[in-house]
Amino acid sequence: MTPQISIFRQATRTDLPAIVRMLADDDLGSQREKFETPLPKPYYSAFEQMSSDPNHELIVAELNGEVIGTLHLMFLPSISFQGGLRAQIESVRVDKRFQSQGIGSEMMKWAMERARQRGAHVVQLTTDKSRVDAHRFYERLGFKGSHLGMKLNLK
Amino acid sequence: MTPQISIFRQATRTDLPAIVRMLADDDLGSQREKFETPLPKPYYSAFEQMSSDPNHELIVAELNGEVIGTLHLMFLPSISFQGGLRAQIESVRVDKRFQSQGIGSEMMKWAMERARQRGAHVVQLTTDKSRVDAHRFYERLGFKGSHLGMKLNLK
Repeated sequence: MTPQISIFRQATRTDLPAIVRMLADDDLGSQREKFETPLPKPYYSAFEQMSSDPNHELIVAELNGEVIGTLHLMFLPSISFQGGLRAQIESVRVDKRFQSQGIGSEMMKWAMERARQRGAHVVQLTTDKSRVDAHRFYERLGFKGSHLGMKLNLK
Repeated sequence: MTPQISIFRQATRTDLPAIVRMLADDDLGSQREKFETPLPKPYYSAFEQMSSDPNHELIVAELNGEVIGTLHLMFLPSISFQGGLRAQIESVRVDKRFQSQGIGSEMMKWAMERARQRGAHVVQLTTDKSRVDAHRFYERLGFKGSHLGMKLNLK
């Protein structure tokens, strides 16, 4: 059953605690976020940077006035693919109380349509190899796991 | 043997044909690039966008005045990881005549150091699953293949 999503929209500064709460409420996220009141300042600095750059869209899903989902959609110009624009999605989360109800899927479809409107030729994302449910989720949306995602920590 | 690299630097508009030539001279790249004289306009449009955005750095390696390597280094603000800055690398190429001489490795190390200087907490990249040599190359540089890279073509 898919509940009525009131709206997908650009996040505002006041949505930030709800977003960080969702990022932190997760096996991997709990090890790397600091969900405190007030939020540590770097969260706000990052938000300001993203807000002032039209290539970054921090999206929230709102249900009955409450923020219950988020993702970060970004647009990356590139020389490759004949100067083609890429869309990339990071930090996809749905509030645990509202998971498995189709909200993540609706939110992703909204982002994919937005990427298409803005002229991207591809939507790309990476997901931790341990998130097997996420792999299936993205495959159902049409994504193909064609790449190896590699990371090097600098800190 | 590592030859003397004269310089790693930001690409200029006049470097673009050399960059596209390297992107096209590759099993996968040959299917998606158009290396013609003059270059198709979208390459220049993408270059202008990247040049005007300090979060994108199109890098070339120059040896004896000739462009023989390239990569695209980008900086991505993010709410996750406590508002941490990510660096991402795409479109890494070394001219076939100069491969297996350590140039790619030097170029990557230069980019990793640049990412560190700009305060990124991680360098991330994806590489096609078929590029097995590339996986080993990045592993030698310290990258870990912890993620699945998924793509959805929109065109």
